[in-house]
Amino acid sequence: MTMLTIEGVPLNEIAKKVGTPCYIYSRALIENNWKAFEKSHYKICYAVKANSNLGILNLFANKNAGFDIVSQGELERVLAAGGNPKNIVFSGVGKTKEEIKCALQVGIYSFNVESWPELERIQEIAQLMNKKAPVTLRVNPNIDAKTHPYIATGLHHNKFGIELKEITHLKSYSHIDLIGLGCHIGSQIMDLEPFGEAIDCLLNLAKKINSIKILNLGGGLGIQYKDEKPPSIKEYLSFIEQKLKDQPYEIILEPGRSLVGNAGILLTKVEYIKETPYKNFAILDAGMNDLIRPALYDAWHNIIPVTLHTDIKPKLYDLVGPVCETGDFFAHDRELAIKPDDLLAISTVGAYGASMSSNYNSRPSIAEVLVDKDEFYILRERESYQDLFAKEKLNGLYVNG
Amino acid sequence: MTMLTIEGVPLNEIAKKVGTPCYIYSRALIENNWKAFEKSHYKICYAVKANSNLGILNLFANKNAGFDIVSQGELERVLAAGGNPKNIVFSGVGKTKEEIKCALQVGIYSFNVESWPELERIQEIAQLMNKKAPVTLRVNPNIDAKTHPYIATGLHHNKFGIELKEITHLKSYSHIDLIGLGCHIGSQIMDLEPFGEAIDCLLNLAKKINSIKILNLGGGLGIQYKDEKPPSIKEYLSFIEQKLKDQPYEIILEPGRSLVGNAGILLTKVEYIKETPYKNFAILDAGMNDLIRPALYDAWHNIIPVTLHTDIKPKLYDLVGPVCETGDFFAHDRELAIKPDDLLAISTVGAYGASMSSNYNSRPSIAEVLVDKDEFYILRERESYQDLFAKEKLNGLYVNG
Repeated sequence: MTMLTIEGVPLNEIAKKVGTPCYIYSRALIENNWKAFEKSHYKICYAVKANSNLGILNLFANKNAGFDIVSQGELERVLAAGGNPKNIVFSGVGKTKEEIKCALQVGIYSFNVESWPELERIQEIAQLMNKKAPVTLRVNPNIDAKTHPYIATGLHHNKFGIELKEITHLKSYSHIDLIGLGCHIGSQIMDLEPFGEAIDCLLNLAKKINSIKILNLGGGLGIQYKDEKPPSIKEYLSFIEQKLKDQPYEIILEPGRSLVGNAGILLTKVEYIKETPYKNFAILDAGMNDLIRPALYDAWHNIIPVTLHTDIKPKLYDLVGPVCETGDFFAHDRELAIKPDDLLAISTVGAYGASMSSNYNSRPSIAEVLVDKDEFYILRERESYQDLFAKEKLNGLYVNG
Repeated sequence: MTMLTIEGVPLNEIAKKVGTPCYIYSRALIENNWKAFEKSHYKICYAVKANSNLGILNLFANKNAGFDIVSQGELERVLAAGGNPKNIVFSGVGKTKEEIKCALQVGIYSFNVESWPELERIQEIAQLMNKKAPVTLRVNPNIDAKTHPYIATGLHHNKFGIELKEITHLKSYSHIDLIGLGCHIGSQIMDLEPFGEAIDCLLNLAKKINSIKILNLGGGLGIQYKDEKPPSIKEYLSFIEQKLKDQPYEIILEPGRSLVGNAGILLTKVEYIKETPYKNFAILDAGMNDLIRPALYDAWHNIIPVTLHTDIKPKLYDLVGPVCETGDFFAHDRELAIKPDDLLAISTVGAYGASMSSNYNSRPSIAEVLVDKDEFYILRERESYQDLFAKEKLNGLYVNG
């Protein structure tokens, strides 16, 4: 009987102490990914939305990492985790006035500006605050990143970025410091070519604008979930270096998935084995509310039994959760030798796992655990049932009249 | 200038006092739906997962409603909202030992049992607790409800229910009281015919089992989002009464969407109008994390401006949120006369709106409000940024060693 471990810790030991389901991250894997990116001389801003747990952010803060945020909630998280505001870039198409004000107040590195109305708004607020806002214009380069339509972001009909053609006639703003150009063409990208096109596009444009000192190439490097063959971090960086040889610009990268995606698993228990004449189901204690990627993106995740049985015949199973809809599945038709109470590791869920989780079906948020060599920490406590409705009221406060 | 109201309350007044985005429910609409169901002599068990806010549950509890729950979290909610445990039916394919124990302890009306292994587990636990567990077997009738595949639940390849053929040879259990048969073929169903097939199937089977006193027909009645023509609650009930004429069984229904779906809106503000040569975007302050139905089910929701402008030319807009992915949309190509700071009501989101929401992009959960004639209550307070990471730790507690 062999037992699956993360670093030096057997997964069944974590299950015993923390319960299931839970997310488990490997510190070593995250740090390895970080080291690979750090070899470049670029400014690496971790895309917080991939996994925004304070403990994960703290790992990066301790490396003096930059952070790519998309909301005030993420800003507050980075600050609470000890991140340096001067290393923050702020992306997102819908920045509110309060968010802009707060970002100017703490002094972030740069706003990634997604539209002219946003630029006008930043100018107004900066003027009121008597500050100069550092701005990188996000260009929409109309490049097909060949990824899932929900995470392709660099096409004309996407909501992101500013039309290339519109950027040549730049108005000047008294309280805007236009320091950079950027783009982000999507997520989980498998080819280097679209990145190359994006770089060419930014370089052409940057030449025409004197003040540009920074090129922000965004994130988007894909990782392996199944049998994809993404470029390694090293190959990706070499490719960029090649394209940018002898260019005078400071380069920013915004990796998220490629820093944490392969460093996390979702540990879950088989509640029931349900065999029918048509299909066999393994009903797990994790649900679509804990990990929505299969339902939302039709994502494929490898599912690994923690205990290998030699005395059980493998069968084909649909791996499903307890949530009351058919969309609640993790995988179809996987051959596994399993029985009730077995632990399974749903792999490669360090990114867009916990950060997209919900309380659907009134299921408390699950624990998150960090493994560090042969020890493990709880980074986020499991919610209680009472936590679910702590903000709710039977007889609500009258707020009018 | 006309202003949109809910019952007697103008929506802009709620926005001023509560902020946006927020969910707003109409007490009168919920109670109207309840009254329509109540006219039947059936046991109506509200499907809590549709909208599990304590204040909404309390409305139903005050009507002495039954509740259809799918988790211990929902059980705790019903109890906290003053619901009677004796009116609770417990559905779901993945009931844990703890959940079964807790349900037996409080004395629920019936377990909707989804598999033989679940029945065995209930028998074991009931025996240990020296209790008799009331059980309704959920049948998988292999009926096509003709709805979105994620919410079709009555087909052979779905994880729900027990194969019809397997039910004829019933083992007897010392601590199980087999009182009923049930089925639930899906959600948002537009035709009465599949319900008729399900009833026929249950009746045929019930005749063969002496102990059956209850038929649970589940929920699933559709509502109008766009131009669908669902049967009214009255037509649905008449159809069922017709089918069940002179039958001796107690009937349970589990409506969710049809009780609360049309009673809720999502009130949101236009942050930016972004016009491009290819598309116009209205960027709202609500995001896919607040309402995931468009991204997850490709759902259509009517979007109604709170203020009607006569001086603005209508244009086609994509209505999108601030979340950093292309999946973050509410609607495509809607003709609207709008400008920044306008309020919009995303309609028919009383069901599967707030209950499926998440904190993705570190966005705090939004407020929920109940309108009652010309007054309004806060049913759920908006989360703070600090709430987002209240359960997280920088330097997690060591739990081993």
